[in-house]
Amino acid sequence: MEKKDNVNALFLGPKSENEEFFKETLNMMMNEHMEWRKEFHPHDSDSIRPEEKREEVFRQTQQRTMDALKELSEKLKKDSMPWFSPRYLGQMNSDTLMAANLGYMSTILYNPNNCAYEGSPATTELEIEAGKDLAKMLGYDEKKGWGHITCGGTIANYEGFWMARNTKSIPYAISKVMPELVKGKSEWELMNMNVDDTLDLVDEVRKAGKFEEMRDYSVRGMGTQSGKFGKILVPQSKHYSWPKAADVLGIGKNNLINVQVDENFRTDLNHLRETIDSLVEKKIPIMGVVTVMGSTEEGAVDDVAAIVALRKEYRQKGINFYLHIDAAYGGYARTIFLDEDNKFMDYDKMNAKLHKEGVILHKEINWPKKSVYDAYKVMGEADSTTIDPHKMGYVPYAAGAIVVRDRRILDMISYFANYVLEKGMKNSPTLLGSYIMEGSKAGASAAAVWTAHRAVPLNLNGYGRIIGKSLEGADRFYDALVELGEFKIKDKTYTITPLTNPDFNIVCFSVNEKGNTSLDAMNELNQKIFDKCSYKTGAIYKTDFITSKTELEFDNYGDAPKSFVENCKIPGSEWDKIKSVRVLRACILSPWLISNTDYKQYWGNFINTLKKVLEEIA
Amino acid sequence: MEKKDNVNALFLGPKSENEEFFKETLNMMMNEHMEWRKEFHPHDSDSIRPEEKREEVFRQTQQRTMDALKELSEKLKKDSMPWFSPRYLGQMNSDTLMAANLGYMSTILYNPNNCAYEGSPATTELEIEAGKDLAKMLGYDEKKGWGHITCGGTIANYEGFWMARNTKSIPYAISKVMPELVKGKSEWELMNMNVDDTLDLVDEVRKAGKFEEMRDYSVRGMGTQSGKFGKILVPQSKHYSWPKAADVLGIGKNNLINVQVDENFRTDLNHLRETIDSLVEKKIPIMGVVTVMGSTEEGAVDDVAAIVALRKEYRQKGINFYLHIDAAYGGYARTIFLDEDNKFMDYDKMNAKLHKEGVILHKEINWPKKSVYDAYKVMGEADSTTIDPHKMGYVPYAAGAIVVRDRRILDMISYFANYVLEKGMKNSPTLLGSYIMEGSKAGASAAAVWTAHRAVPLNLNGYGRIIGKSLEGADRFYDALVELGEFKIKDKTYTITPLTNPDFNIVCFSVNEKGNTSLDAMNELNQKIFDKCSYKTGAIYKTDFITSKTELEFDNYGDAPKSFVENCKIPGSEWDKIKSVRVLRACILSPWLISNTDYKQYWGNFINTLKKVLEEIA
Repeated sequence: MEKKDNVNALFLGPKSENEEFFKETLNMMMNEHMEWRKEFHPHDSDSIRPEEKREEVFRQTQQRTMDALKELSEKLKKDSMPWFSPRYLGQMNSDTLMAANLGYMSTILYNPNNCAYEGSPATTELEIEAGKDLAKMLGYDEKKGWGHITCGGTIANYEGFWMARNTKSIPYAISKVMPELVKGKSEWELMNMNVDDTLDLVDEVRKAGKFEEMRDYSVRGMGTQSGKFGKILVPQSKHYSWPKAADVLGIGKNNLINVQVDENFRTDLNHLRETIDSLVEKKIPIMGVVTVMGSTEEGAVDDVAAIVALRKEYRQKGINFYLHIDAAYGGYARTIFLDEDNKFMDYDKMNAKLHKEGVILHKEINWPKKSVYDAYKVMGEADSTTIDPHKMGYVPYAAGAIVVRDRRILDMISYFANYVLEKGMKNSPTLLGSYIMEGSKAGASAAAVWTAHRAVPLNLNGYGRIIGKSLEGADRFYDALVELGEFKIKDKTYTITPLTNPDFNIVCFSVNEKGNTSLDAMNELNQKIFDKCSYKTGAIYKTDFITSKTELEFDNYGDAPKSFVENCKIPGSEWDKIKSVRVLRACILSPWLISNTDYKQYWGNFINTLKKVLEEIA
Repeated sequence: MEKKDNVNALFLGPKSENEEFFKETLNMMMNEHMEWRKEFHPHDSDSIRPEEKREEVFRQTQQRTMDALKELSEKLKKDSMPWFSPRYLGQMNSDTLMAANLGYMSTILYNPNNCAYEGSPATTELEIEAGKDLAKMLGYDEKKGWGHITCGGTIANYEGFWMARNTKSIPYAISKVMPELVKGKSEWELMNMNVDDTLDLVDEVRKAGKFEEMRDYSVRGMGTQSGKFGKILVPQSKHYSWPKAADVLGIGKNNLINVQVDENFRTDLNHLRETIDSLVEKKIPIMGVVTVMGSTEEGAVDDVAAIVALRKEYRQKGINFYLHIDAAYGGYARTIFLDEDNKFMDYDKMNAKLHKEGVILHKEINWPKKSVYDAYKVMGEADSTTIDPHKMGYVPYAAGAIVVRDRRILDMISYFANYVLEKGMKNSPTLLGSYIMEGSKAGASAAAVWTAHRAVPLNLNGYGRIIGKSLEGADRFYDALVELGEFKIKDKTYTITPLTNPDFNIVCFSVNEKGNTSLDAMNELNQKIFDKCSYKTGAIYKTDFITSKTELEFDNYGDAPKSFVENCKIPGSEWDKIKSVRVLRACILSPWLISNTDYKQYWGNFINTLKKVLEEIA
C-alpha cells in the first residue's frame, strides 16, 4: 500500500481534519511572498513608515478593512453551501483539493495576468503546461494539440464553436483569394471540407502571403451570413450554454438543431443520422456536431465512439462537420482509464486492475459500461473538447478549459496573425489574449490547475483514485435506491425510482406515493422534498441533507422522459398531458461517501431525512 | 486629519510593511472557515481519521501537495512582475487592496459559483450589490441601472455589444410579429429606433405574449445577417478586444469602422461626424458607437460630453445608435469627482476641495482638464459601460464589470425569458448565468470587489484618495520629463519627449539622441531601453526599473502620431515612410510615487537607470 495515495490527504476535509497541514502550508506560502517583496531592492526605503502605523487614522483605515472582512465572513458562513460535507449531494460540487486552493490563494498576491506573457512570465507557462496535461490526458497528439484554461465551461464552449464557425467558412474564403487552391470544387464541396484539409490549405495561403486577406473573407471578417455556413447539431441533453453560444456567436438560435436523446439521455444515433441526411438532402451544410460526456442533469455519456464512426462514414460520402465534445463535466474521468504509465487500459483488464489498485474498493461495482469505455477511448478524435477543472478536477472556481486537436486552428480566431508557428514559446503562443476569447485573465486560476495536476497525477493513481470513490459512491447510492422498495410513512406508502442506471456519478430519482397516478401530484411531492432539502428553506446550515432538482420538459427533451414516468407507475398519458417531470438530482463528487462506516451513516442520514421530510409533508 | 483615510493602511506594501495585519486577518478568516466546517452537523463522524494521518502513505500524499506548492512558489518568485514596487511603472498594475486579496482568498474555501443562486446564496447578493455600487458611482439611475462582475473587460465589452447587437434588431423583429406596434415605420426608421423606445415596445410585446416569438426574429434567433444591422464605430485608440468582439459576435471585423483620433489620441469629433454622415447618406445603419475613457496605450479620455451632445443632435434627425463607454481603465477615476456625500462636484470648486481634503497633496497639480471633467460628468448617459475592478479598482484578477443604464435590456440576451421583472430578488435576476455571457463563475471574485468597496468608499475619501496619488504621481513624472531637457551620456546628448500631456495617469515618452533624424534609429534606441527595463532580460527581480512599451502604427492610428514624431525632432517625412513609432509607456497606478522622499528616490532611480542603460547601449 505504501505507493498508493491516500486521497484523504488531499482535501481540507469535512471537519477541517487537515487544518494543521493547510495552515502550515499557507503560512509557508505567505512568508515566501512577503520575503520576496522585502528582498526586491532591499535598499529602497519603506513606503509605509513604522511611525505612521501607530497613528489613529492608520488604525481606523485598517479597521475598515477588518470590518469589511468580518462582514464578508458572516455572510459566507450564513449563506454558503456546505459542499465539503457528504451530506451535500446536489450540484456538481464537493470539497476541492488543498493543492488547488493553496495554489490559487498564494498566487493572488503575485496577481499575474495571463493575457500577455509580459504580465505573467511564470503563470503563462503554467497555463500552457496545464493545457498540455489535459491534451495528453484526453488522448490528443501532444505535438499537435493545445489547450488552455478558460474562465469556465461556457466560455470554452463558445471558443470551441467560434473556431468551428470560422473554420467552416475558410474554404469559401480561400475560393475568393486563391481560387486555384480549390479549383473545381463546388460550393457544396467547399462547405464540406474537413478541418485537416482546410488547415493544410491555410498553410498554403499563408505561404503565398494572403493569410489576412483570406481571413477577411471568412466569417471573422464578413460576419455570419444568415445561416450560410450551416447548422449546429446538439443533443437535447445539452447544457444551456449551447443556445447561448448560437446567439453570442451570431449564428442564431434558430440554426441550432436539437438531436433527440434516448431513454438513457444519450444522443439518439438514429435521429442524428436522420437529421444529417435530411439536411444533406436540402443541401444545408452542417457546421458542427456537439456530443456530451457527462450531461449536466443526468451525467449521461454519449456513445461518442459510434458518433466518431458515423463521422468517418459520412466523410466517405463527402459530408464533413466539426466535432466538439462537451466533456465539461465528464472529462477528468478519463484519468481512471489510464494506468500508472498513462496508457489507456484494455477493457477486459481494466476492472480487475482498478480493484487490485484499490481505485474501486468494493467488488460489486462494475464500472464502466462498455459504451462509456469506448466513448472515453476515442476522445482524441474530436476537433475540440471542453473540460472543466472546476468540476471533476476538484479545483475552485473559475477554471474551465478548451483543448484542440490541431493547434493550427487557433489562427482562425487569433487577433495577431501567424504567431502560433513563428513566435511561439515551446511551440505555443504566449500572448494568450490574442488566441482566445478572454483578454485579461487570472494567472492564479492557471496556477491552481497546474498545482493540482502536479500534486495529483492524471491517471488511476491520482485523479482516478478520487473519481473512483465518487463513482463507487454513486453506484452504491443507486443500488440502495433500487433495493429500498416500498416504505411506509404514517399511513402512506412510497417508492423511489431512479431516472436511469447512471453512466457516471449523477443519480436522479423521483419519489412517488404508491397508487398515485397523477404526474402533477408526483411533481408537487418532489418539489416539496426539494424545498426542505435545499437552500430554499433559508437555513442551509441546519439542513440535514442537501440535494438539487431538475425539470425534464418536453420542450427540451421530447419524449425521452416518458418511460421514466411510466417506471414511476404514472400512465404515459399523464406525460403526454403534463410534459414535464421533476426529479431530484444528486451529483456524487464526494470522495467520502464510500468507506463502509461513512456510507452507512450517510445513507442512513439520507433515508432518515427523506422520511422525516415526508412525515412533515404528509 | 482623523477622519481621513491613510491609503498606506490599505495595501500590503512594497516591503510587506503591513505583514502583521495581513497575516492576522488571514488567520482570522481561515479560522472562521475551519470552524464553520466543524460545526456543520458536529455529531457526524470524521471522514479522515486521526490514525490514518499518521500513516506513511498519508504523509507521502501530503508531501506531494507541499512539493507542488514549493515548486509553484519558486516559479512565482523567479518570474513574477513586482507590481507592488514604485520601481514598476509599466502595465496597468500596482499593489492591490488587502481587503480585496483577503476577500478573494477567504472566499475560495467556500467556493461559491455565481452562475445560479443555488450555488451561491451569499456571493450572488454580493455581486448584485457590487454592480449597484458601480452603477451608482458611474452616475446611472440606481432604480433602472444594473451591473455585474465579469471575468474581465474583454468579456464585458462583448457583453455590451451583444446587447447592442440584439437590441438593434428588435424593432425589425417586432415588425414581423406585431407590425401594428411599428405601423408606418420604414425599414430605415426601424433601424434607427433608440434603446428606450425599443425597450418600451418590448414591454408591449411581452404583455401580448409574443416575447419569445419576437426574440426568434431578432439576431438572437436569426443570427447576424451580413451587416444588415449596421456598423460599429470605434476610435483608433480602441483596445483590441473590439475587433475580437466584432468577430466573436458574428458581426464581422469588416463591419467595424475606425474613427480617427486626434493628436491627443481622443476620438476626433469631426471624423466621427463625417463617418456618421457618410453612412447615413448610404442608408447604412449604425449599430453602435464605442467611446473610450482611459485608452489602453495612452490613457486618453474621449470628449464623451461632446459625443453625448452629438448623439442628441442626431437623434433629432432620426438617427439613433447605441452608445457604449469603454471605461475599463478609466472608470474608477469617477470616484475622485464625488464628494463625501457622493455628489458630483462643481468644476470650479473641485480642485480646491481635492487639495483641502488632501486627495491631491501638491499645489501645482491642476487636474482634471475641463473636457475630462465633462466626460466623467455625463457617463450616466451611455447605454452601457465597461469598468474593470482589476485595473483602477485595485482588485486582483480576474474582475471586470459591465453596467447598463436600463436593466430591461438584459432580456434581449437572457436565456430564460421574463425573469428580470417577474422573479427578481430585489428587482435583480439571481440566476446570473441566464443573463450574462459567462456560466459558472467565481463568487470569490465578486466577494473581492464587494469587500474592496466596503473597505474603500467609492468617492474622494476612498478610491479618490488612492487614484489622486496615482494621478499626482503621473503629473509629477510628466513634469520632470518635460523639465529634464537635454542630458549627456558619454559623448552623446539625449532628450525625452512625452507623447501627450496626459488626460489620466499613463505617461508615454520616447528617448531620442540629439541630432538624430531617423525614425528607425529612434525606434531602435527605445527598443533597446525597453529590452533592458522589462521582463525581456530574464531576471526581472534584479531589474532596477520596469516599464512597458507600445508601437503606434499607421494601420491602427492613421497619422495621429505624426506630430509627436515631429516633436521628437524627426522630420514628418520619416513618419510617412516608417509609419510606426515606438514609445515607452508608464502606467502610474502606484500610490507610493508621490510622497516627497519617495518621489525623489524613485525619480532618481528612473533617471539613473535610464542613464546607465544608455551608457550600456552607447
